[in-house]
Amino acid sequence: MSKLRVSCFTVSLDGYGAGPSQDEQNPLGRGGIDLHRWLVSTRTFQRVHGRAGEGTTGVDDDFARRGDENVGAWILGRNMFGPVRGPWPDERWRGWWGENPPYHVPVFVLTHHARRPLEMEGGTMFHFVTGGIEEALRRAREAAGGADVRIGGGAATIRQYLRARLVDEMHIAISPVLLGAGESLLEGVDLRALGYVVTAHVPSAAAMHIVIGRAPGA
Amino acid sequence: MSKLRVSCFTVSLDGYGAGPSQDEQNPLGRGGIDLHRWLVSTRTFQRVHGRAGEGTTGVDDDFARRGDENVGAWILGRNMFGPVRGPWPDERWRGWWGENPPYHVPVFVLTHHARRPLEMEGGTMFHFVTGGIEEALRRAREAAGGADVRIGGGAATIRQYLRARLVDEMHIAISPVLLGAGESLLEGVDLRALGYVVTAHVPSAAAMHIVIGRAPGA
Repeated sequence: MSKLRVSCFTVSLDGYGAGPSQDEQNPLGRGGIDLHRWLVSTRTFQRVHGRAGEGTTGVDDDFARRGDENVGAWILGRNMFGPVRGPWPDERWRGWWGENPPYHVPVFVLTHHARRPLEMEGGTMFHFVTGGIEEALRRAREAAGGADVRIGGGAATIRQYLRARLVDEMHIAISPVLLGAGESLLEGVDLRALGYVVTAHVPSAAAMHIVIGRAPGA
Repeated sequence: MSKLRVSCFTVSLDGYGAGPSQDEQNPLGRGGIDLHRWLVSTRTFQRVHGRAGEGTTGVDDDFARRGDENVGAWILGRNMFGPVRGPWPDERWRGWWGENPPYHVPVFVLTHHARRPLEMEGGTMFHFVTGGIEEALRRAREAAGGADVRIGGGAATIRQYLRARLVDEMHIAISPVLLGAGESLLEGVDLRALGYVVTAHVPSAAAMHIVIGRAPGA
């Protein structure tokens, strides 16, 4: 069955999914890039970014690869799409990723400000959804045609879907870094009360991988 | 040199050092006991609790053993000593651990309410300190005679010492469990701004071990 899932979302030891002070030079906020060391080193990440055959295999790569499998559509919060806030001043901002973003499927961007769909190279089409998380999910499921829908983040978007109990599976990686401040993934979200449990945990040298799913009967 | 350190303090994936609803039946709060699986299984823990020769060796045991080495005095927050709140109604509460607590050195308990020292079997002496964290540290260092002073917890006590930049080294273990609510160890504490960095991280099958120390020059 088509799942709504979070994969490869990385948090710091102190629970932040991105550092403070996000801007065009620091899409992940100050210190945020350190979070993703485990992922960047993998063969899967290197392949997706045009360096086939490079990178490591093993636990980290297994999670990276599974994260990319069977994804029919993505959902992103607006800050994951870019640093622009408020109404779109124009259509010049086309995402952090250049003309060929690493999605290659429809991507639904949550925003309060309408914008025309944006077709990129390589099969990525950005749709801007102003109707909230359920509308985005409905449209993403439709676009995914039976494959999974993956939430890319950021933390606030994931929290909204968790609170609505709509997430079927969430893989997070805890990186051994301190960000000190930033956007907390789980602050104020009682996953246990929402019916979630840890279904797998696998350590690697670079991160602690955790899979969270619904408790039996939840 | 004598260090002020935290060792073997365990937090859940969602950052809690104890579950909610602490009481006499649940000294670690609801769900809190799950946190400590990695520790309870070790040879060191089993030995300290009278079952010499039982338990596992390896990464978890290495951390457990090092945590117990060279400790000359302990500092505990009042809730770690017991569930009694407010003025002591009498002297009947003598800690969670029975007549022979696993400390065997002087233990300084932070409280707002004076109480006479309490001598237990096996070398443990509880002192009740009403003058705050710096007084407790001064007295503990004196009692430790050059050995380290270990902060047992809880989270609020550790946070106070971290904010005052008095902690020299902190080993935490992240257990793959969700508590959902409880006492957060790091909420509102910007370790990075306080001059701390991750100095070691070692995964085991049961936990992610992290050592935090002062940044060079901090």
